[in-house]
Formats: sequence, C-alpha cells, structure tokens
Amino acid sequence: MTVTTTDPRTGETSDTGIAETTSEGVAALAAASESAFRTLRRRPRAWRSGLLRALADGLEADRELLVTTALAETGLAEPRLSGELSRSIFQLRLFADAVDDGGYLEAIVDHAGQTPIGPGPDVRRMLVPIGPVAVFGASNFPFAFSVAGGDTASALAAGNTLIVKAHGSHPLTSARSFAALQRAARAHGAPDGTLGIVFGQRAGAALVADPRVRAVGFTGSLATGRILLDIIDGREAPIPFFGELSSLNPLIVTPGAAGARGAEIADGLFLSFTGSGGQLCTKPGIAFVPASADALVDAIVARAQEADAQTLLNDRIHGAFDEIRRRLIEEGRARSLAAPRAGGPGYASTPAVLEIDAASLTPAATEEAFGPLLLIVRYDSLADVVGALSAVPDSLTATIHGEPDEAEQIAELTEAVRDLVGRVVYNGYPTGVRVSWGMHHGGPWPATNTQHTSVGVTAVRRFLRPLAWQDAPEFVLPPELRDGEVDVPRRVDGVLHLARS
Amino acid sequence: MTVTTTDPRTGETSDTGIAETTSEGVAALAAASESAFRTLRRRPRAWRSGLLRALADGLEADRELLVTTALAETGLAEPRLSGELSRSIFQLRLFADAVDDGGYLEAIVDHAGQTPIGPGPDVRRMLVPIGPVAVFGASNFPFAFSVAGGDTASALAAGNTLIVKAHGSHPLTSARSFAALQRAARAHGAPDGTLGIVFGQRAGAALVADPRVRAVGFTGSLATGRILLDIIDGREAPIPFFGELSSLNPLIVTPGAAGARGAEIADGLFLSFTGSGGQLCTKPGIAFVPASADALVDAIVARAQEADAQTLLNDRIHGAFDEIRRRLIEEGRARSLAAPRAGGPGYASTPAVLEIDAASLTPAATEEAFGPLLLIVRYDSLADVVGALSAVPDSLTATIHGEPDEAEQIAELTEAVRDLVGRVVYNGYPTGVRVSWGMHHGGPWPATNTQHTSVGVTAVRRFLRPLAWQDAPEFVLPPELRDGEVDVPRRVDGVLHLARS
Repeated sequence: MTVTTTDPRTGETSDTGIAETTSEGVAALAAASESAFRTLRRRPRAWRSGLLRALADGLEADRELLVTTALAETGLAEPRLSGELSRSIFQLRLFADAVDDGGYLEAIVDHAGQTPIGPGPDVRRMLVPIGPVAVFGASNFPFAFSVAGGDTASALAAGNTLIVKAHGSHPLTSARSFAALQRAARAHGAPDGTLGIVFGQRAGAALVADPRVRAVGFTGSLATGRILLDIIDGREAPIPFFGELSSLNPLIVTPGAAGARGAEIADGLFLSFTGSGGQLCTKPGIAFVPASADALVDAIVARAQEADAQTLLNDRIHGAFDEIRRRLIEEGRARSLAAPRAGGPGYASTPAVLEIDAASLTPAATEEAFGPLLLIVRYDSLADVVGALSAVPDSLTATIHGEPDEAEQIAELTEAVRDLVGRVVYNGYPTGVRVSWGMHHGGPWPATNTQHTSVGVTAVRRFLRPLAWQDAPEFVLPPELRDGEVDVPRRVDGVLHLARS
Repeated sequence: MTVTTTDPRTGETSDTGIAETTSEGVAALAAASESAFRTLRRRPRAWRSGLLRALADGLEADRELLVTTALAETGLAEPRLSGELSRSIFQLRLFADAVDDGGYLEAIVDHAGQTPIGPGPDVRRMLVPIGPVAVFGASNFPFAFSVAGGDTASALAAGNTLIVKAHGSHPLTSARSFAALQRAARAHGAPDGTLGIVFGQRAGAALVADPRVRAVGFTGSLATGRILLDIIDGREAPIPFFGELSSLNPLIVTPGAAGARGAEIADGLFLSFTGSGGQLCTKPGIAFVPASADALVDAIVARAQEADAQTLLNDRIHGAFDEIRRRLIEEGRARSLAAPRAGGPGYASTPAVLEIDAASLTPAATEEAFGPLLLIVRYDSLADVVGALSAVPDSLTATIHGEPDEAEQIAELTEAVRDLVGRVVYNGYPTGVRVSWGMHHGGPWPATNTQHTSVGVTAVRRFLRPLAWQDAPEFVLPPELRDGEVDVPRRVDGVLHLARS
C-alpha cells in the first residue's frame, strides 16, 4: 500500500508513491539502528556536534524544496514555514554547542576514600545514550516537531540512533526532510542505520513494540498517546515514553491590565490564538477577562469577524474544531460571540470566539480544540479566577497580564498557576516558544506524562540514562571521567568544577 | 484491624497495637500533605537543609531504640542494623549539603535578546518540588530504604512533603523511625502534614490512587510494582512512579582472575551473596566462572556447607528462596552444589549454591531469588559469557573480575554489559552501595522503570520538575533565578557559572 498526501487548501488527495513500511521493514530498520548505535556511541563528542551541524547545513541546502513541499501539504503560510525550518536548523546548531559544552553529561567523580560511614570505592558517573529512539512527528510543525525536529536533535545529541514515524499529514515533507538529513549524515561518516524512517500507522505501532527501540518521543493527541502507552505496557520490557499530549494554556488578564492595555492585549491575544491557524500546542485556548472589560472582548470579536479564513492542517483537525465548538454551544456551556465562516474548497475557517462566566466553567467546557478557537471566561474577582482554574486541565503554560501596581495580585495568580503548568508567561503570549538553554516545554498530565521538556537544551536528558563505573581501570572510562583536566564541567568529590578552558 | 509483627528468628507473631490506616485516614493525610506542601515550598533552601540535619540528629538520638526494635523484627545482625542506621543518618546530612550547594536546581537564565532566528524573551528555569510524594518502604532495609531511607531524604531535599507506607515486615521499626523524624521535624518548625505514615496494603493502594499524591517512590518486588503501576494507570492524572524492582547482578570472573586470585574471589563472592542473608537488591545472584576453575567453585561450596544458618526477613522470602531453588533443580535447569540446611525455629537457612553450563543458561533459570542463593555458570570462553548474558535480565549492576594483562577481555566484557546495567564494578562486589554524589543505583527494566537512581545525591531529581518563568517581574522569581550573584551554580546565557563563593 502506498501513502497519499492531501492538499488542505483544496482537499485533493494524491498518491506519493511512498510505500507504507511493512512489519518486516520496521524490524530491519530496528536491527540496523541497534547495530549503528554500538558504533555511534564510541564516537567522541566533537564528532557528534559536527554531525548536528552537518545536518543543519543539509536542511539549509534544501530549504526551497522543503518549504515548497510543506506549503502544499500543510496550508501553512510561507513565512511561517520558512521560519520554522530556520528554527529547526538553529536548534541543531544550539544542540551541537551543548554537546561541545558537555554539561549535559552531568559528569561526577567520587574518588575512593574514607567517609563518615567507612571506606568508599571510586565511583564515576555520567549520562550515556539510551539506544535506538523512536520519534513521532506531529502534524502541526512539519519541521520543528517532525523529522527534522526537536526530538531528532535531542536523540542524536545524546548519542543515539533514531527512527522517525512520518506524520500522515505531510509525508512528502517528511521524506524530503529525511533525505536531506540522510545525505548529510552519510557525508559526515555516520554509519548506516543512524537514521531511519517509517510510514503508516501500523509501522508506527510496530516501532513502539520493537524490543530494540529503547525510548519514544511523541508529540500529538492524548488519544494517540494513550494508544502508544498501551503498546508500551504490553512490551516485555517497558521503555520510557515522552509524550507532549494536550494543553489549554490559560491566559489571565487582570483588571489593571484590561484597563491600561485592553486594546493592545486584544491584538496580541488574537494573533496568539489564531497564529498558524490556532494549531499550536501553546495556543492560549482560554482567557480570563474581567466582566467589566467589554471593550477588550469586543475588539477580539471584531477582529475574528473581519478575519480571512485560514486553512487548517487536515480533515480531522478541521472537523474536531467545528464539533467541539458546536457541542459547547448546544450543551449550553458557552455563548458564541463570533461564529466561524468556512472559506474556500479545503479545510479553511475563520476564527471562533466563545464566552462563559467564571462561575459556570466546568471541565466539560475545557476540552483542547486545535484551530482558531478561544474561550473567554468573564470574572468578577481574581478569587473567581483562582476557583475556576480547577476546571482547567494542567497545561504547558499559563500567562498573566498585570500592571506594575498589581504586584500582590500577580503574586497570588502566580501561586495559583505554578502547580498547574510548566511555564508562566508575564505580559506576553505563550506561543512562539524560544529554543534556548532554559526553555521548559512540559507540564503535569495531560500536558505531558513526564518531568522533562521537549524544547530547549535540557530536552536531551530524555534520551540519556546514568551509568556508573566503580573502581574502573582508566582504559574503560570515557575521557570525560578520567583523572586530570577535562573539557566538560563536572563534580569531583562534591565540588563542581568548570570545564578546562 | 491492627497490625501484627513477626520475629523471623522464631516465627512468632504479636499485635503491635497500631491500627491499619483507613481510606478516610489516607485521604486526611493526603489533604494535610498537600496543604503543608504549599507552606513548605516557600521556605528557603537553608531552612530545608536544616530540616534534613535535624532529622539526622533525631534518628541518632533514638539509635538504641531503633536498632533494638529492628533486631526483633528483621533478624538482621546488630552491626548491620547499626551500620544501616548510620547510613540513613549520613544520607540525610549529605543531602543537606546538596541542598546548600544548590546545583541540583539546574538553574538556567536566558536573558532577552536577539538570536539567529529573531528576538527571544527572558526565560529562567529551575527545578521545583513536585508535590506530596508517597514512599514505599522495603523489607530488606528497615532504615536505608524505609521510613528513614533514601526516598524520604530525596523527597524532602527536593522540598516536598511525603507520606510513607510502612512495610509489613517491620511495622514497629517504621512507627518508631517515624516518631523520631516527626519529633525532629516539629522542633525544626515544619508544618503539620510535612510527614505522614500509613499502615496496611489497602492504605498503600489508596495512597497511590489519591489525586493529591504527585509521585511514588518504591523499592520492592516486580509483582507489587506492577500492581502499583496498574493503580497509577487507572488514575485520572497518572503520576511518575520510580520503582526499583528486581536485579540479578551478574558477576564475571575472567580466566586470569580465577587463576591469580581464585581463593580471594571465592571469599569475597561468598560474603557478597550471603551478606544480610542474601537479601540485597545488589546481591550477585549469578556468577560466570571458567570451566577450569574448580578450585574457586569448590571453595565457595565448602564455605556454604560450613556456614551457620541465617535468619531471613519473613515467611514469603523464606518460602520463595526455597521454591525457586527446588524448581531450578527439579526442572533440570541447574545442579545443586550446596543444599541449604534449615536452622532454628524461624525463617533460617544456610546458603545454597547451584551450577549450570553457559550453553544451557535460559531466562527460566535467571529468576531473582532473595536469600543466600548463588547460581554459578561455568564457561569455556568469554564468547560463551557474552552469549549467555542475553538470558540474564537487565540489572542494577554487573561486576567484572579481571587481571591487568587482560585489558582486551575487560574492555570486551565492559562493552557486553554496559547496555544491560546501571553500574559496572571492577574487581570488587556490587553489594555495599556507596552513598555519594556520583552513585547510580538504577538500570534498564526490570531493574528499574525509569532513567533515575534511588541512591546518591542525584536521586533528588526524581521528585522535582522543571518550571520556567518568562519575562517575569523579579518579585515572583525564586532568589536563585534573580539577576546578580547567587549562591547556586547556574547557566547564564549558555555559560555555566559557579556559585558565589
């Protein structure tokens, strides 16, 4: 069976000529991946940072082809796609810097010696790669969370091999991204099996079940995440699953902020919940606005009513967006302030705005809806907000808009949201996640299922595990754990030392 | 219903007078724990390191009572119990040092600025406590892996509250350890609800299911671990489960080592697999010995036959030890070299030694057996060892005994075991785990189910999660993330800085 691709601007489907990967194909890729892993993990860090930079250059060389391909498969705008590819390229280079830095290894040396409870052996510990990693691309980021995305950069930076499951919404973009990476990896001398790709849902399931796969990185829906977790539970040896699953991203506007910057916030919030067709995991899907701030709400509604239609990624997202909106209205959970208008032959729609009172907010009204949908919650007091937050699922982010003279309120809101999310944003918007050393993109269930991030340098930690050597002869130790000066920061006998400069 | 305690030296059971915790009792403790958490996490690090040191002093003050109580409940020897209590006390003080050091926070500051892909906001990230933690004590370490153990030290060092599930094999030791900790915590000013304890299996299950509990630390059997994981899967919001579950800990003696140090290795290995009645998760349960090294094997067998009986912890362990041994022999999987002799009225036994050829080793012969049982695998070549290792479940440790002129063999064996374990020991024994900064006590499934350790300072990471603040006003930031010099190491704009000295 071959894989089809659909242009969401028209809804027209065509054959890609790419075959769905058979179960035998998956097994062969996993075997090659395991074999390459044993070769790859002996390579020094400098080789690996070079690989990441070569992959970045390889993507850059194919920029035009990749962006053009993604345009036809996603309906996203050209500047967004080009910017996203730049982000993927930057990410690979940043992770290369992190590999050179070596701090991510968490190297520790405890020399043998007397301790308060007796003599202790020599113990040296650092993080080592975990093995072949399966990476599931997401529909909404054909570059940054797909074949060339953050999970790929993380798994390779850690020293692993990887096999990507191509997302069915952009198979050609996946295949061409993979070709660019594969060509660059081979030219850099990576062993065959370093990179693999599979197509088709059954191949994805087989990949997660394969005993040679040692970890899974996934960005997608809670429902698919649950299916993959069930497959992992059925394995003889369960493996770590890093899922970024669902997020509503509450945004709170204080009375002071609504008064001082209502129009500006209306603009910013509108751009944030409609950007990329509202198909971002950090989209603010719910906004708490003072009952008195009609002007702010009216401005958002006006912009929604005037907006051009945006093409959504696929039939499923387009359908769910509409269905969730209708259900909320029909069940009387929310009032419609701006109804979406369809536009064009494909999966296009204008934004939708709903409204509810804080006292009426229930968990049934807080389902994540991909697409340009915003639920505005009107409140009388910040105590109402704090109470209503219990109806909002834990999320990747929370955002607080407040004024300098509202320090007490901002502190109170921070206390109220900090246990519910992984990132708190002040006077800004949660979309447009910065790829940096300190970014955290994760949160309590159902935002993610682990205590790790999938964006930023610390995402590498997901695909590493600690290994300790006790009283080891020097020749079996990695260079980073030998005595003398080393090129990584490490803790020696309890004291942190910087890398040799 | 009240809890009973059994003296394993006699098998006699008596009533402790302690009531099993009801489901209402568990819920009340969880509510108090959640409430205390909100208070506790505002306390500065210096307060928390003081708490850990106060707990250590509290245990020291009750040393005699605690050791005497544990003697009667575990049958373990007095020096072992006193040493274990010292280890728990040392552990709390070491973790206090780690809290003062602050490196465990992984603080990162990315200032706002221009990046290769556009302007980036100010992002600051560090690890924060996760919430109320449930800790399950293990039978085999009434102090170091129980109420006063490593999970307790880790959860509190991270800034969490905790509720311990007392192990049914030592309820009085648990209650008295808890009393010592509780008294010290109150004197230090910890809020009510900081520490809790529950008794009874149903209470343990209710604890894991309680929505206010945010993580579970568990050391125990694979079977019980699976039951608790099932409870977590049934929660509305699953939580991290850190299980240390099962380990066989292969030990390999090269031909050179057998020739040069056969008698010494026989002594060391005997002490390692019989120490504490062979009831250590790091017990070397399987040893690969050259087919030619009869003298080494004979020496172990002779020691086993001459040994006095040791009391095992409880009826279940005593029964399983005997059953696994019998099954291996009856099913023809291994030959008996030394049969155990019962001793005394309680759960006592002398050591058992079994033998098998490397070519005959199958997964059916490698079930973990708590108790003084050693399976010796005779091999002709190191290639046989490497092949036979595939029948050994992944473990916490592997041990290699080799001579200086066998560098090539030692390197080859290291490559063969490093993917299978979390710690590789050279010319020593895996038991007697050093509590230090770099110790790693974990391994691939079924040794543990995560990429984390339960011994050593990095065990604290299990009960922390990252939180990021974006463009935050200074007054909501923790002191460790504010501009200026701070008392923790942190990475600022990509560059690691040591703490202000």
